[in-house]
Amino acid sequence: MNLKQLAKELNLSISAVSKALRDSHEISAATKTAVIAKAKELNYQVNPFASSLRKQKSKTIAVVVPEIANNFFALAINGIESIAQERGYHVLIYLTHEDCQKEVSITKLLQNGRVDGIMMSLSSQTANILHLEELKEKQIPLVLFDRVAENIDCPKINTDDYKSGYKGTQHLVEMGCKNIAFLSISNHLSISNKRKSGYFDALKTNGLKSDNNMVIECSNDEEKNRKLIKKILKSKNKPDGIFASVEKLALNVYEVCKEIKLDIPKNLKVIGFSNLQTAALLHPSLTTITQPAYEMGREAASILFKIIEKRGYNLIMEKTTLKSEIIVRESTGN
Amino acid sequence: MNLKQLAKELNLSISAVSKALRDSHEISAATKTAVIAKAKELNYQVNPFASSLRKQKSKTIAVVVPEIANNFFALAINGIESIAQERGYHVLIYLTHEDCQKEVSITKLLQNGRVDGIMMSLSSQTANILHLEELKEKQIPLVLFDRVAENIDCPKINTDDYKSGYKGTQHLVEMGCKNIAFLSISNHLSISNKRKSGYFDALKTNGLKSDNNMVIECSNDEEKNRKLIKKILKSKNKPDGIFASVEKLALNVYEVCKEIKLDIPKNLKVIGFSNLQTAALLHPSLTTITQPAYEMGREAASILFKIIEKRGYNLIMEKTTLKSEIIVRESTGN
Repeated sequence: MNLKQLAKELNLSISAVSKALRDSHEISAATKTAVIAKAKELNYQVNPFASSLRKQKSKTIAVVVPEIANNFFALAINGIESIAQERGYHVLIYLTHEDCQKEVSITKLLQNGRVDGIMMSLSSQTANILHLEELKEKQIPLVLFDRVAENIDCPKINTDDYKSGYKGTQHLVEMGCKNIAFLSISNHLSISNKRKSGYFDALKTNGLKSDNNMVIECSNDEEKNRKLIKKILKSKNKPDGIFASVEKLALNVYEVCKEIKLDIPKNLKVIGFSNLQTAALLHPSLTTITQPAYEMGREAASILFKIIEKRGYNLIMEKTTLKSEIIVRESTGN
Repeated sequence: MNLKQLAKELNLSISAVSKALRDSHEISAATKTAVIAKAKELNYQVNPFASSLRKQKSKTIAVVVPEIANNFFALAINGIESIAQERGYHVLIYLTHEDCQKEVSITKLLQNGRVDGIMMSLSSQTANILHLEELKEKQIPLVLFDRVAENIDCPKINTDDYKSGYKGTQHLVEMGCKNIAFLSISNHLSISNKRKSGYFDALKTNGLKSDNNMVIECSNDEEKNRKLIKKILKSKNKPDGIFASVEKLALNVYEVCKEIKLDIPKNLKVIGFSNLQTAALLHPSLTTITQPAYEMGREAASILFKIIEKRGYNLIMEKTTLKSEIIVRESTGN
């Protein structure tokens, strides 16, 4: 029995029930009596911890991200920090290093009232979201950004991943590619899967065969990634185009091509999601799909503060989609 | 009158005086009486705030850095975070964006007991260190790393900046450069000045004239930096080699050379301090002086925890110098 269910039973808003339980002056005595009676009847227990949390503001928010030595997350954190600073909030940063267990233990740690709210981008290994559900149960405001989970109700900020996957693939086709490989970072992450769906659909639209062998499941282990990339680039059915679903994988492709002396873009065209400042200075310069990372951070933080300040956690379920941009450079040229 | 001076007057260790003032069982009654009498005589006031700080551990440390979208700081934070996680500490991150005023206000904010200790790398605009002295007065453990201040007593972690400046310049000379420019990020920062001293001395050793016009004072404004770099590269006395004292400036050189179609390394050789993963993939690949950023972060955090746990703040004045490495690539080749 949680607050939401109790509210439903009473045919009241969550906010009204919550206020009644906290003996707010905004709620009539009659309503308070009704709420308390129903809560007793249904054995609903006010979570004292969550309640104390709401009262004692820590003026601190947490950002949980897979890594920090990554241009997308660094820029997103810059955006988050700019909003937090305006509001006089402190920012705690936690790195999961793409380890789901670490993500779970950080989440548990954050249930103790240390922070007023959490922004999170999931690790590539996160397959279930029980730890996120726990935060919700404890009424700790949560906003997901970029690497979001589909099956949890909370505000989510992402970019147009499907469309970007489609447009990036379409661009490779237009530049003459007929056999395009897709480098995936995780089959758990919805962003990776959406980008892949866009890739598959663009192949189909263009009458190209889609082949699961052309989807390479990469990981956080760059050494392994380079081996996988080398293997496919030396195979019989070698691709003439590669779509890297994250920045790191595009760099791994460059490293392998340098090693095996494969000419980009002559023998292989490459496009990758990336926020790399040096994309234009690479050899050759890299065609990228660039996400508005800084703006995503600002947007995620703004929504989090809206929840923290309005205390209407369950009421805000915004899903915000920002647009990415294709920047065409030499790596997909002729 | 601070604790250090009081201890000196009493001819006791700071730790003993501090314990006496806190009525520790480790100190004899006679010593306590003497300490309290002297403290009264000299009008020394125990800072109740600092004292409460020592008792109520927040299990949180702060990291104050100029920026996060920078490979050196991102890697250093990874190192700090790895140690903090081992110790069960939380890490608060503050960005100064190279703004000294922001650094001062963050430092003031951190005097309220929110953190058990602070690690800091100074902004390029930080010319005086009163705000750091205040932290010391309040006995808040402070460790400086990379961008340290020379004139404050606290543990400092840096790399061999003078030597790296010397060796980098020597390398350019050996590759045939006779007119080498030095791009400085700040004339306040000791790291920038040490690197510059190494540059000047290497010129001298090699019988090359040093010329203050060849030292370009750059800033956080990349647009301005590019203008300054373009100006000198188009001047009569244009350099045949450039030493970039920080990564960002090396990239600005690449951007300008791309724009004005100046061939690196044929017309200009470039070396830069950098922790860029893509250094090897740039066009041409960039010769770098690479600092052990991750290790510096780990070292700084280890020393901070030593101070926090031993509570012997004033007693630890370690200065640790780690070695940087020159990695020769195409940008300084023939």
